[in-house]
Amino acid sequence: MKIRAAVLEEFGAPLVVQEVDLAEPKAGEVLVRVVACGVCHTDMYTASGVDPSGYAPTVLGHEGAGVVERVGEGVSSLKVGDHVVTLFAPQCRECDHCTSGKTNLCMAIRAEQNNGYLPDGTTRLSRDGEPIRHFMGTSTFAEYTVMPEIALAKINPEAPLDRACLFACGLSTGLGAAMNTAKVEAGSTCVVFGAGMVGLGAVAGCRLQNAGRIVCVDLSSDRLELAKGQGATDTIVADEHTTEKILEMTGGMGADYTFEATGLVTVMQQAVETARMGWGLATMAGVAGKGETLDVIPRWLIQGRRVAGSSFGGVKGRDEVPQLVQRYLDGDIDVDAFMSHRITLDEVNKGFDLMHHQDGIRSVIEMGTA
Amino acid sequence: MKIRAAVLEEFGAPLVVQEVDLAEPKAGEVLVRVVACGVCHTDMYTASGVDPSGYAPTVLGHEGAGVVERVGEGVSSLKVGDHVVTLFAPQCRECDHCTSGKTNLCMAIRAEQNNGYLPDGTTRLSRDGEPIRHFMGTSTFAEYTVMPEIALAKINPEAPLDRACLFACGLSTGLGAAMNTAKVEAGSTCVVFGAGMVGLGAVAGCRLQNAGRIVCVDLSSDRLELAKGQGATDTIVADEHTTEKILEMTGGMGADYTFEATGLVTVMQQAVETARMGWGLATMAGVAGKGETLDVIPRWLIQGRRVAGSSFGGVKGRDEVPQLVQRYLDGDIDVDAFMSHRITLDEVNKGFDLMHHQDGIRSVIEMGTA
Repeated sequence: MKIRAAVLEEFGAPLVVQEVDLAEPKAGEVLVRVVACGVCHTDMYTASGVDPSGYAPTVLGHEGAGVVERVGEGVSSLKVGDHVVTLFAPQCRECDHCTSGKTNLCMAIRAEQNNGYLPDGTTRLSRDGEPIRHFMGTSTFAEYTVMPEIALAKINPEAPLDRACLFACGLSTGLGAAMNTAKVEAGSTCVVFGAGMVGLGAVAGCRLQNAGRIVCVDLSSDRLELAKGQGATDTIVADEHTTEKILEMTGGMGADYTFEATGLVTVMQQAVETARMGWGLATMAGVAGKGETLDVIPRWLIQGRRVAGSSFGGVKGRDEVPQLVQRYLDGDIDVDAFMSHRITLDEVNKGFDLMHHQDGIRSVIEMGTA
Repeated sequence: MKIRAAVLEEFGAPLVVQEVDLAEPKAGEVLVRVVACGVCHTDMYTASGVDPSGYAPTVLGHEGAGVVERVGEGVSSLKVGDHVVTLFAPQCRECDHCTSGKTNLCMAIRAEQNNGYLPDGTTRLSRDGEPIRHFMGTSTFAEYTVMPEIALAKINPEAPLDRACLFACGLSTGLGAAMNTAKVEAGSTCVVFGAGMVGLGAVAGCRLQNAGRIVCVDLSSDRLELAKGQGATDTIVADEHTTEKILEMTGGMGADYTFEATGLVTVMQQAVETARMGWGLATMAGVAGKGETLDVIPRWLIQGRRVAGSSFGGVKGRDEVPQLVQRYLDGDIDVDAFMSHRITLDEVNKGFDLMHHQDGIRSVIEMGTA
């Protein structure tokens, strides 16, 4: 079939929205009509060419939600009409990682997906007979996509898809960093560095874990207002005294849990430094630049601080994304606050511009609109 | 009373064994006749002058064991004749850290101890009326010492004190890194970098936790033989291919738990790198040089590796050292293998020389001998 999609033709250049070919789903695959898709930093990062593992041409987009249109042979967990959130982190439920309670990093199709292919090593996307690679196994900057069954989370159809799509990446990453990776304990003190999608999700996750105090740090007081809406009890406009301020707020000791959601290694270091002596856990959720390192003074560790990282918030997507969406429907998570701009697929580059200028938290592409 | 003690007079110079004055124990303090004391890297590190928090003159030594000779006012948990291990890490059982199950870093007398004083801010050690500071709150390179009650662990008197003293620092640090800090799970794969006292203790700790596989890495094949005696199932003579060898031994994935017991930041980095994707925990037990940092590639963390540090193995000394000594008496821990040299107090500098030349694991000073 012919579909419209935003293609990364050349690193550093705008995406080109155009018609491409999408083949039928093979065994274990599903054709999804994409209804909405968030524009995430990772899309922009890949488009920029800075990501050394990036490839082109490819259809970008990974924060998608839609409706099952057709299923391939052997697909048993999904049927036509089901509402789904796309998962760049699949869950096969069979590999060593899926059967462990300790990690969400499914290994089933990792190699193929990293190279831009579906599990059988081929693509469904093409143009004039030439293959176009699938980005993150999702390629949701498009009217339709073909994805593996194991990379789709079936959600309550009552959830509006333009909100549900945010659970496909940033929001779940933040929520899960607090709920799964750090497993924040009730009554504890938390600090979240960064009030973008991931950081705000972490604030909400700390709140859902019944943290006693949630301090959010960001350069923008507008974003910090959003953080208050998500449950931050205190906010700090970041400056050169941020660390001292946090230590002051915590009796000189630091926080039980800190979260880094900026991707800046200096902030990661700050997250370690402001974690409490004795048992403070610093969780890194941001993606650092290539070649950069988090430099830790070993004494910080010897004094009892721990350092962890979180990929997709440790969320096992097929099991947990539906639960998180349900918590949104139950009123526990305020997703509306994150939707700052609604754009069309043709305006996808505007989504990058808005993100580049830190205008709002999330632009959501609505596929149905012209 | 007049006692003989090894005094650090000047950084970088040999210790001077001489007669000094020791005052009676004040309230909450205990006079201990030191019977045996291990010579530890930390003593040598301070003597060298490299430690920026060091001070002189002071009586060094902290890996001591002895017999209670007199108790000060209000001392209730110890009586004359009790056998004790000295604790540089006290346990007041009352502070926020002692009442938490998460850390062993008692805060009760931290500031005074770090400055070389007993809890009331004065010293019991002096010479010609001039105070001599207490090192690590212990000063056990001496015939007698006065210490706070909260810094003495009462052990089974059946334990020979020349073995029991090793539980005062290095051995407990290694055992506890595996048992308390990492909480190694049965059947798991562990890698221990360094086969000195702490590393060998970690190997033994992994064995006591019923690890399935214990790989020990060191430059010395003699030390690696000792590691086998402590329970190492595999050994690697460290070279530039160590990381690849470990990955090869673990199906390309790395180990469930890694332990660093060398104090070298490059080895710390290796410990992080060889920890398993998904859930590998890298525990730092060595003390790095001043100004050095452990440089972590954030992606290692995002992929699920965690980094921790261990001070005195997370051991709450008064509660757990007696238990560890009992496990030695029960035959679970082979302490004899660590005792490579027996020396007199007058030979203390020889103990440093042996350590400097990596001759054996531990020299133990026997105070009673001439």
